[in-house]
Amino acid sequence: MADPAPAPTAAVLVIGNEILSGRTQDINLRFLAQRLGERGIRLAEARVIPDIPDVIVATVNELRARYDMLFTTGGIGPTHDDITSECIAAAFGVPWEPHPEAWARMERSYKPGEFNPARQRMATMPRGASLIENPISTAPGFTIGNVHVMAGVPRVMQAMFDTLAPRLPGGTPIAARAVHALGASEGRLAEPLAAIAARYEELDIGSYPFYRPGGNGVAIVAKGLDPALLEAAIAEVTALFATLGYAPVAGEPAA
Amino acid sequence: MADPAPAPTAAVLVIGNEILSGRTQDINLRFLAQRLGERGIRLAEARVIPDIPDVIVATVNELRARYDMLFTTGGIGPTHDDITSECIAAAFGVPWEPHPEAWARMERSYKPGEFNPARQRMATMPRGASLIENPISTAPGFTIGNVHVMAGVPRVMQAMFDTLAPRLPGGTPIAARAVHALGASEGRLAEPLAAIAARYEELDIGSYPFYRPGGNGVAIVAKGLDPALLEAAIAEVTALFATLGYAPVAGEPAA
Repeated sequence: MADPAPAPTAAVLVIGNEILSGRTQDINLRFLAQRLGERGIRLAEARVIPDIPDVIVATVNELRARYDMLFTTGGIGPTHDDITSECIAAAFGVPWEPHPEAWARMERSYKPGEFNPARQRMATMPRGASLIENPISTAPGFTIGNVHVMAGVPRVMQAMFDTLAPRLPGGTPIAARAVHALGASEGRLAEPLAAIAARYEELDIGSYPFYRPGGNGVAIVAKGLDPALLEAAIAEVTALFATLGYAPVAGEPAA
Repeated sequence: MADPAPAPTAAVLVIGNEILSGRTQDINLRFLAQRLGERGIRLAEARVIPDIPDVIVATVNELRARYDMLFTTGGIGPTHDDITSECIAAAFGVPWEPHPEAWARMERSYKPGEFNPARQRMATMPRGASLIENPISTAPGFTIGNVHVMAGVPRVMQAMFDTLAPRLPGGTPIAARAVHALGASEGRLAEPLAAIAARYEELDIGSYPFYRPGGNGVAIVAKGLDPALLEAAIAEVTALFATLGYAPVAGEPAA
């Protein structure tokens, strides 16, 4: 297979005090990680930061410069602690102003008199932003430059990402193959596994112990762009499991 | 109440390709966020990075310089993709060498001949590290400087943190009070809520819409060091809910 182009890179920035206080379990990172991988986009880093303007501005500028794409979640609602949108404008050095299309859509969605100043903030965006549709609750996200600004509520974020996804530059999807064995011990298989991993340096081969009601063991997951290489590496790991007296099973262990 | 000393700050660094690929849902961040808050330690930032040596070294050095404490999870097992420990040694510029006490403990825990080179790596640490007990599976974590290095498996990480916690410098515990109302709309309460938040600038007042089988609504959470201020702020929010025609309920909505 010809050398594929390097995968585009991305970072995820989760913005919200509620994640850093432990009030809320973030589930947006995993969703985005999976969807980006399916599209051949390499998620290189994720950060969680608080609702502090200087921190948001500096982190957005650092990450948008370092990676091909930046996805933010959180902080675009109507309340005083929703400050992501104006911070993105500050990061880009552009005015934060009513977005005509967002404004029109939102105004239509409220009864007369209910599109109040707080709700109008959700139609106020950095100049030059293009909208990310929100099929759940109207108030759109937006894209400016290589930064995609989405809601924090998982159902809304997921719907936004799915409308955005076709516009993203993609790469060769990252494929994965796995094999696992009950009763396997990482300490016993580590050395021969390292030798296999060294022979397949184009692949990312990970070893993951699991602890499940059905029994403990180890799963080996190989990821990469070339399916034939993946099959070959997993065949070697399968043979290694058998040599060590474990019964290899294709795929990941059932939850 | 006298002005409290500023809370010590912390960062959490989650190390592992499996989080960035979406294979694994991280639950360590939330656990650490909650426990740190209970001890009066302000979690200022969290990052998720891949198993790449240069990235680990650079990120550890950035975060340990910026915050009072750094907690890492992941990458201290016996396999080739477990590289956190040697990267921490590189970050501190110290040798990575057998830790006598960790070595003795681990050697005792295996049958003769089974403490192989892969397992010996788990007893190899940066010079000067002090151990963090592992009551679950023996192989210890460690502390060096202000960096606390723990396992990625949640059950092991949690047990490690609980043995470590009494040694951490603490602050005044961060207290929280909450009130919520079914049927409440952020867009209606945002403006008067912002006025309350502006009057209690020592507090962190957050607004969180919820979508539950029992009904949708909004929860307002106030956090801070002074319980009397928290009570006063939540009383004002409770009155605001009532003014808007919502039925306020103390605390957070049931899951």
